[in-house]
Amino acid sequence: MATRLKTPLSQRLRLDIPVFQAPMASVTTPALAAAVSKAGGLGGFGCAYTPLDAMRRDVAALRVMTDRPFQLNFFASPQPAPVSPEAQTDAIEAVTGYYRELGLPQPAPVVAPYAPDLNAQLDTALELRPAVVTIHLNDLPQERIRHLQAAGILVGGSATCVAEAKRLESLGVDFVVAQGGEAGGHRGTWTRDPLSALTGTLALVRMLVCAVRVPVVAAGGIMDGAGIAAVLSLGAQAAQIGTAFIPCPESGATETYRAALLSATEDDTTITDRFSGKPARGLRNRFIRESARADFPKLPFPAQSQLTSKLRSAAAQAGSSDFMSLWAGQAVSLSRRMPAAELLRTLEREALETIERVGSLRQAGA
Amino acid sequence: MATRLKTPLSQRLRLDIPVFQAPMASVTTPALAAAVSKAGGLGGFGCAYTPLDAMRRDVAALRVMTDRPFQLNFFASPQPAPVSPEAQTDAIEAVTGYYRELGLPQPAPVVAPYAPDLNAQLDTALELRPAVVTIHLNDLPQERIRHLQAAGILVGGSATCVAEAKRLESLGVDFVVAQGGEAGGHRGTWTRDPLSALTGTLALVRMLVCAVRVPVVAAGGIMDGAGIAAVLSLGAQAAQIGTAFIPCPESGATETYRAALLSATEDDTTITDRFSGKPARGLRNRFIRESARADFPKLPFPAQSQLTSKLRSAAAQAGSSDFMSLWAGQAVSLSRRMPAAELLRTLEREALETIERVGSLRQAGA
Repeated sequence: MATRLKTPLSQRLRLDIPVFQAPMASVTTPALAAAVSKAGGLGGFGCAYTPLDAMRRDVAALRVMTDRPFQLNFFASPQPAPVSPEAQTDAIEAVTGYYRELGLPQPAPVVAPYAPDLNAQLDTALELRPAVVTIHLNDLPQERIRHLQAAGILVGGSATCVAEAKRLESLGVDFVVAQGGEAGGHRGTWTRDPLSALTGTLALVRMLVCAVRVPVVAAGGIMDGAGIAAVLSLGAQAAQIGTAFIPCPESGATETYRAALLSATEDDTTITDRFSGKPARGLRNRFIRESARADFPKLPFPAQSQLTSKLRSAAAQAGSSDFMSLWAGQAVSLSRRMPAAELLRTLEREALETIERVGSLRQAGA
Repeated sequence: MATRLKTPLSQRLRLDIPVFQAPMASVTTPALAAAVSKAGGLGGFGCAYTPLDAMRRDVAALRVMTDRPFQLNFFASPQPAPVSPEAQTDAIEAVTGYYRELGLPQPAPVVAPYAPDLNAQLDTALELRPAVVTIHLNDLPQERIRHLQAAGILVGGSATCVAEAKRLESLGVDFVVAQGGEAGGHRGTWTRDPLSALTGTLALVRMLVCAVRVPVVAAGGIMDGAGIAAVLSLGAQAAQIGTAFIPCPESGATETYRAALLSATEDDTTITDRFSGKPARGLRNRFIRESARADFPKLPFPAQSQLTSKLRSAAAQAGSSDFMSLWAGQAVSLSRRMPAAELLRTLEREALETIERVGSLRQAGA
């Protein structure tokens, strides 16, 4: 019998290791989610921009590989009012030079809807019955949460401050994801200025564990088993890990993205809202630097994401990191390249070793 | 025989619990440092603005109470060139209304030197022979470090990013304090923009432990034994705790300051450079809000600190938190009021309980 780490939440989900693979939009694939879930963690999909048929296809592909639990994650931010083509002139002009540089045709105004309809996505989730549905960037109406739960789905929401965690708890979620300031990708903050809610993972997780009764899943800056042991110490019931999974061969990241993460030797991330319209943490690159000036024109989220989409794909195809959104957490320098199953086994071994090591700091004393 | 937590660094310092009381300038007192050191932690003084005779008096007062180890901490930031009275007009005008409101006479131009001479302070430290000298806001010349070490003093420096930790290690320090983004008070960053180096404690501690060979002391957001166990998991050899000690009756904080910390229920801190000229984290108050506009005129650090000094004292005396620098870390909502020795015992008990709890998450499994 092997020794495994179990928490009430991980047991409820029949996990062998209390690790959620972060549901990173446009990086998650059926291969990654399946590998994580088969290895005993919770694999998952970031469905932020995923059309319904692609959601169905992804889940079907995963289910060929495993029948273990997985999660679907959605951006719950309300859609902005459609932006008229005339109102897009400045934002288009701001990226036109980059389009030209990459050999792309002049960018066209983007057209609403800028992202898939959340209600249709949630209806599809209900039909697909993942073990877990989580939401990011907002809360959900209570009856939506109950509806998912009635189908046997555990529902979680992301919080970046005490108030958001309490709000989610009051709506009846099954758990809260504490998104610490270290986390890569989009800041989940929805009740205040996201940049004023950059509370570090260590502080945030502990405050949320003390503030709410539902289980807390810790996210942000966790790259190895020591990080897992640390957040379990803070009272979290699972660690949600994103950046560490991106270099896995099963992820959807381009080789350029992987290489950028693996060569980051310092704490070189920053926060930008120029790619999508909402602040997100990633590696500094040319686009982030050049678009950083306060008056750089941009569309509201997620219309801006559509506007920069071709830029990002073309850069990726050209093998240039200049215009890619290289989302990454602050502990990116601890990235390593290994298959997802091996990473899970490594995380588990390291977490157990850490717990052993910290236990051995206890000594008989005066 | 009680069970105690021991790390190589805490054993070298003969501590019973691997906790450093953060050396918070203008909050530390002989009573606080002595109570912490007597209870088995490392008490200490923040000597940033402390004249030499006051340093001698404080250390003598502590030594009447205990012969256990303690630390002295210094701001190692170079002094700015003197600012002429004419060049201070705007900065003085910006605070004149506040002076008037508090019944203070019109503020006068501040006069260099704006802070005690670092070399004289370090010479005095050499004469006083604390167990530990730490520096903040910069590194030190290598021969200064060696000189202190030759006198049997352990020397530590504060790092907010991997590069600073490596630099300190190359200079021969005995340990590095990883100041995570959660930490209250002045940001120690000296090699880059402090606001671009707000790496969370969890990520920073783990990256520094992996990047340098000297022991790492974790600071930022640690308020209880769960936090201590968390940073030990990350590989830190001690937890440096500041905010949690401010409400202790032995601290030099005013009742207004204590009350503000104890009533903070959310993650309500922010970073301002308007009190001293350098960014520091504290509770939002009227002065921080009103001085937040980008063109608020201020003097360079630490001249600005002299300019706002009377304002802060008068506000404190009047029992108003409006103009006080209420330095606090992001986990301030976990503050509690107890004597320092009781807090140390509580931290130790909680840390041991946490280690026990996390150990019991290990279960035989498939």
